[in-house]
Amino acid sequence: VPIRLGSNSYGKSEVRVVRVVRDTPRHRILDRNVSTALQGDFAAAYIDGDQAQVLPTDTQKNTVYAYAKDLQAAPAEDFAVALARHFVDDVEPVRGARVSVEEYAWERIEVDGEPHQHSFVRLGQEVRTTTVTAGSDRTDVVSGLTDLVVLKSTGSEFTGFLVDELTTLQPTDDRVLATSLTVRWRYAGRDSADLADVTDARWDEAYANIKALLLARFATVHSKALQQTLWEMGRAVLEARDDVAEVRLVAPNRHHFVVDLDPFGRENAGEVFHADDRPYGLITAVVERDEVPPAPEAWAEWPA
Amino acid sequence: VPIRLGSNSYGKSEVRVVRVVRDTPRHRILDRNVSTALQGDFAAAYIDGDQAQVLPTDTQKNTVYAYAKDLQAAPAEDFAVALARHFVDDVEPVRGARVSVEEYAWERIEVDGEPHQHSFVRLGQEVRTTTVTAGSDRTDVVSGLTDLVVLKSTGSEFTGFLVDELTTLQPTDDRVLATSLTVRWRYAGRDSADLADVTDARWDEAYANIKALLLARFATVHSKALQQTLWEMGRAVLEARDDVAEVRLVAPNRHHFVVDLDPFGRENAGEVFHADDRPYGLITAVVERDEVPPAPEAWAEWPA
Amino acid sequence: VPIRLGSNSYGKSEVRVVRVVRDTPRHRILDRNVSTALQGDFAAAYIDGDQAQVLPTDTQKNTVYAYAKDLQAAPAEDFAVALARHFVDDVEPVRGARVSVEEYAWERIEVDGEPHQHSFVRLGQEVRTTTVTAGSDRTDVVSGLTDLVVLKSTGSEFTGFLVDELTTLQPTDDRVLATSLTVRWRYAGRDSADLADVTDARWDEAYANIKALLLARFATVHSKALQQTLWEMGRAVLEARDDVAEVRLVAPNRHHFVVDLDPFGRENAGEVFHADDRPYGLITAVVERDEVPPAPEAWAEWPA
Amino acid sequence: VPIRLGSNSYGKSEVRVVRVVRDTPRHRILDRNVSTALQGDFAAAYIDGDQAQVLPTDTQKNTVYAYAKDLQAAPAEDFAVALARHFVDDVEPVRGARVSVEEYAWERIEVDGEPHQHSFVRLGQEVRTTTVTAGSDRTDVVSGLTDLVVLKSTGSEFTGFLVDELTTLQPTDDRVLATSLTVRWRYAGRDSADLADVTDARWDEAYANIKALLLARFATVHSKALQQTLWEMGRAVLEARDDVAEVRLVAPNRHHFVVDLDPFGRENAGEVFHADDRPYGLITAVVERDEVPPAPEAWAEWPA
Repeated sequence: VPIRLGSNSYGKSEVRVVRVVRDTPRHRILDRNVSTALQGDFAAAYIDGDQAQVLPTDTQKNTVYAYAKDLQAAPAEDFAVALARHFVDDVEPVRGARVSVEEYAWERIEVDGEPHQHSFVRLGQEVRTTTVTAGSDRTDVVSGLTDLVVLKSTGSEFTGFLVDELTTLQPTDDRVLATSLTVRWRYAGRDSADLADVTDARWDEAYANIKALLLARFATVHSKALQQTLWEMGRAVLEARDDVAEVRLVAPNRHHFVVDLDPFGRENAGEVFHADDRPYGLITAVVERDEVPPAPEAWAEWPA
Repeated sequence: VPIRLGSNSYGKSEVRVVRVVRDTPRHRILDRNVSTALQGDFAAAYIDGDQAQVLPTDTQKNTVYAYAKDLQAAPAEDFAVALARHFVDDVEPVRGARVSVEEYAWERIEVDGEPHQHSFVRLGQEVRTTTVTAGSDRTDVVSGLTDLVVLKSTGSEFTGFLVDELTTLQPTDDRVLATSLTVRWRYAGRDSADLADVTDARWDEAYANIKALLLARFATVHSKALQQTLWEMGRAVLEARDDVAEVRLVAPNRHHFVVDLDPFGRENAGEVFHADDRPYGLITAVVERDEVPPAPEAWAEWPA
Repeated sequence: VPIRLGSNSYGKSEVRVVRVVRDTPRHRILDRNVSTALQGDFAAAYIDGDQAQVLPTDTQKNTVYAYAKDLQAAPAEDFAVALARHFVDDVEPVRGARVSVEEYAWERIEVDGEPHQHSFVRLGQEVRTTTVTAGSDRTDVVSGLTDLVVLKSTGSEFTGFLVDELTTLQPTDDRVLATSLTVRWRYAGRDSADLADVTDARWDEAYANIKALLLARFATVHSKALQQTLWEMGRAVLEARDDVAEVRLVAPNRHHFVVDLDPFGRENAGEVFHADDRPYGLITAVVERDEVPPAPEAWAEWPA
Repeated sequence: VPIRLGSNSYGKSEVRVVRVVRDTPRHRILDRNVSTALQGDFAAAYIDGDQAQVLPTDTQKNTVYAYAKDLQAAPAEDFAVALARHFVDDVEPVRGARVSVEEYAWERIEVDGEPHQHSFVRLGQEVRTTTVTAGSDRTDVVSGLTDLVVLKSTGSEFTGFLVDELTTLQPTDDRVLATSLTVRWRYAGRDSADLADVTDARWDEAYANIKALLLARFATVHSKALQQTLWEMGRAVLEARDDVAEVRLVAPNRHHFVVDLDPFGRENAGEVFHADDRPYGLITAVVERDEVPPAPEAWAEWPA
């Protein structure tokens, strides 16, 4: 049976670009890690070593920098849409492009109660993400966040589970629930032209709103399992926002084990915990609308 | 539009199990990081918080340990097949299981020219991987390696590429080519019964053989691009082994930039390089047979 | 020449203890990573394998948990002082103890504008640190912070430096200055009894105050070099606080290189930067009082 | 009390330089991570922002590259001695220099049983280290290794230890002993001129010999504690080599806990272990000669 090239892609990963917006003395900074990947008819590069259709990854890096200049303070979503569409629309052999952005938030340093004009401290909480996939006639935007670490010190139980002959876990009606959330949501309900046109404010507002919805639901759900918490968080976003088509959540269960203090003559009523590293539970969920429009390109994992 | 639960899974990740085989004074050690994930009808756990169908991730961890005892020195592939089939065949609500294993190699310490019976030093080179996906009537084995770092100090060029108005890269006919390989190959040509039955020797021999094939091809191909090198490596495996259906390769291009020594009055004819961290090119390829049988479950990324 | 055992220590590192203070429905959490190390006459353990004087590291771990229970919401400094003094005062062979604590800050999740009673999100900014060294008649407290990432988008220059025949750097009067600060300060001006007796509020207030002083000075100094900025930051702390004897600062210079956009027909007036990973400058400074009392034990690096 | 600048240093960290030696078709590669730090009278840079005495860290980076060219295949020790002496001897304000090198080993890829001329695979085992400190009239060389992971599956016990009221550990006469070694040894018995003059072969042979001595002693000592094992390893080096003045060892005790399989109806006679991450024991030791000549500069931790 003959051998052939299957799916493939190439690009530049982790371009660490910092954009300083300095039109006024009150600077802004956008701190991003940008990765690009292209698909198209690149078989000759693989099979014959012929690079005639290959736009170098070095050029993709240059393009990230040039667009960072041109797009000024554009939010990550607009930046990624513009880059992805450029590769597909302007570079002849490219049929699909994916642009991924991680964004690190900074706040102004306070001096005498006033936020400073050009000095910043990194917030360090979650990383904001967006992945844009562009095809010939479609652009999808999947935004999200990662490394958002949350914990409930009560209001979580785990009981009534399936027991087999290897089960030793005891049920508990009060435990610490902690996780490091990775959540992604797909924007929909607009066509790609719309997507590129929304204003700065709308993307940033949406992000802040969805983060707040996720956190609030995590806080208020009395959790019977991490599964249930994820479902409720995803549902909260879909109920509140028509512009989100689906929500994907990945959550490691960061186990906090009650330390047995009995041998030391002490009680431990949910007060002292060992935060364990490995192993950890890993729970995933997609929460979607019943008639969610298909979005193969936005979610498809490119070969990797 | 009503909201529903889409695809989902749950499991235990990174169970760090070390198996000592000590039937004789000449011990062996198997050092593994095992992750399990289950699919099935778990909607009640998400939507109602009802755990009646949920085998705890803690039990999955226990099962890893119990099988490590029972399966003795079984290679990673047999171990993962047994675990995955157990979850699907023996646990009522489970419809699919994925078991992933990372294995770390050790060699015996030499004392006076003799390998020691029970003292070992970790090799530290690549990590051997296997991912087994089990459904009701099918078991797929995808093995591989990751973090295999290779470098050619010559025998690599990059010329004749596409140039647009943002291209500044100069062609080169002699460069350092370096990458950290992640390669996965799907075993096929046997049914799932076969897969579970192969002997220890066959899995380990296959692994050693494929690693050697990949390295040798990397070494001998005069590279016109990393794309070409990946294609040739994948092709080498498919040509040599009927039991492999497809090969997937992911390779970051670890750029080694020639340092400009002109300002210091020195020539640099490919002698002094800066090994850069970020950004890096990222090249991916699937190399497959023309009539490769479909294997959705083995490759499908579970929701994450 | 005979061979002998020189300095030595042993202990338990990275006990990840989470303390939930739940006296009222408004919980608090203290999330810490605690390491202990002991010195004393442990030569027999090394030379003869005789453990009679060796308190197991497992016991040290137990002690961390027991003290976490007993000390309730005590700040890291009090917690570490109590632990260190216990080892020296209560365990016969121990002559010196060092207890190091990393503390991770959390804030309450907001729900409808109100901070939640028992749901938290990790802040993720800097890590608060304290290292307490206890000897027979002395206890020293060195507190600090690490991973505090700061950046000035202007107000930084680097000119007039020494030039030798290998210097190619061009002076600049406007650059991005960024670093990830590690700062430690030694409390003094009280004896060890005092140190153990200060109230919760004083340690936490001191920490908040010193962090604010460091940030404000970083923001307001027009920097002629990172060296100068460090000096000014340390000086600000000593000027403001009599209870601090010396300040030690370590700061990697996280280079942000201006991207040359000329080849792309664009100007770059300090707007687009590449945030580089390696290499990086590394600047250190001790800022102290002229008649600083010696503190060998507090700063001495234990053998490692 | 007036405030003053205490000890301080500055330099360039983690210059990732790869040297290809290509005098013949059989290439060699030296893959290193080089850090430099300088001391001297740099107070003006801190206090006044005056850089007139400051050789930029960028220049230090350039110097690393230039010396990598000039010194060809010199071993890490010679390379670091030459660099450190250059800074002290040739740069007027510099009074002391420390050069640290991490070196990553590669081996040739085998093709048809023959080692390839210019294709390599990274070994990935331990990292070889050297730190050279140069003062006006003295040069010290401390070499070592880090991340050498070793394990004994038997031949290790831990009994007879001190028991207090918080001790719960049970003694064991057969356990897994595993650690990730960091060892440093100081060369002595020659003056600094000698140090700079030794030939390539001698440094590399010493390294290979000492690594072998450490491993063999780890393997053959029946361990009553990790402390004892470290002592024996250090002693083995001093006994075998007159040119080593002292050995420093740091060893995390990577706990391997026997998994309790009783609840699953299985015995576990030292066969199945959980390799835990945190917390871990941490043992340190200095092994030295009775009349070891003092070496303050070589070991002194620079302010950090």
